[in-house]
Amino acid sequence: MYEGAIADLIEALGRLPGVGPKSAQRIAFHLLDAEPAEVQQLARSITEAKERVRFCGECGRATENDPCSICTDVRRDPSVLCVVEESRDVIAIERTREFRGRYHVLGGAISPIDGIGPNDLRVTELMQRLADGVVVEIILATDPNLEGEATASYLARMLKDMDLSVSRLASGLPVGGDLEFADEVTLGRAFAGRRTLG
Amino acid sequence: MYEGAIADLIEALGRLPGVGPKSAQRIAFHLLDAEPAEVQQLARSITEAKERVRFCGECGRATENDPCSICTDVRRDPSVLCVVEESRDVIAIERTREFRGRYHVLGGAISPIDGIGPNDLRVTELMQRLADGVVVEIILATDPNLEGEATASYLARMLKDMDLSVSRLASGLPVGGDLEFADEVTLGRAFAGRRTLG
Repeated sequence: MYEGAIADLIEALGRLPGVGPKSAQRIAFHLLDAEPAEVQQLARSITEAKERVRFCGECGRATENDPCSICTDVRRDPSVLCVVEESRDVIAIERTREFRGRYHVLGGAISPIDGIGPNDLRVTELMQRLADGVVVEIILATDPNLEGEATASYLARMLKDMDLSVSRLASGLPVGGDLEFADEVTLGRAFAGRRTLG
Repeated sequence: MYEGAIADLIEALGRLPGVGPKSAQRIAFHLLDAEPAEVQQLARSITEAKERVRFCGECGRATENDPCSICTDVRRDPSVLCVVEESRDVIAIERTREFRGRYHVLGGAISPIDGIGPNDLRVTELMQRLADGVVVEIILATDPNLEGEATASYLARMLKDMDLSVSRLASGLPVGGDLEFADEVTLGRAFAGRRTLG
């Protein structure tokens, strides 16, 4: 139905994650109506991010500086390492202001169905980082889903014989949520992990 | 939390319609992980669409050719004009294959709350198109919401004294929908517009 440049744009937008055909169309027409400067800004942001962003050789997260600002921050505790799946998980944890150690980004999770095994993740790099004995505690902060749990179990087994404290993030009811709307797995976890009060 | 080019990209993406902060982040990281060729393709599509797409001087829809392929199609009936709000409405109607006349894109709808009055729409252009008497039927296909109804009423009043057949698209239950999930306004319209069978 659409022709030429509009069709190309809708198709390119529709390939983005979470952008269906309707949203792609809506965004395309928004761009056609928008100020040229705003549109140029978007196109430039895409190109520049792609050109300038690399991965930190230390923790593996997406950053413009290698090593990244967290890995080079001397105020952070180098003895605690939080292992996450993706760069965006680092940002999510940083927002909590609960963690002052460093990170290791795996670049995904073990998922046999997607053909992703431990060798596709930054596991060797993790082992290399542990070699000098500086890290004494590891927090496995992979996602609380099938793939994340499998990855955490795999890593826990690998780290078992090393002299490290290994922990996993707590599962339970989301704060501010409603008990009756929690799925049964989450509710089951919340029971299993219940804390004694007082 | 994000820095430099990543932050700029997430911000630029977050300004798109229907793209919240979470989606913007997800799209940004997708682009950082994607093949450079795919990313360049997206940036180029955006720039090219913006450069090449103009508005048809006749019907007002977004197109690369002025006049557009519909306005120049001699197989289409020039006596019937379908008035819509936006270019994407033309595509939606074309998909039905129910309409073989031509279009007039208003470029929006009357919306006092957004400060959009008849003078901000292509109403004068519509009147100019009607001047030669070729068009004998007008279908008002503005959206079935407050703004679209107001626009249709306004146009119906303007066209009242001209020798034209003016109609409005039917409102009613969506095909394939479930009666119990229909909102009361739609259901009310479906009753009011009920057809006698047999």
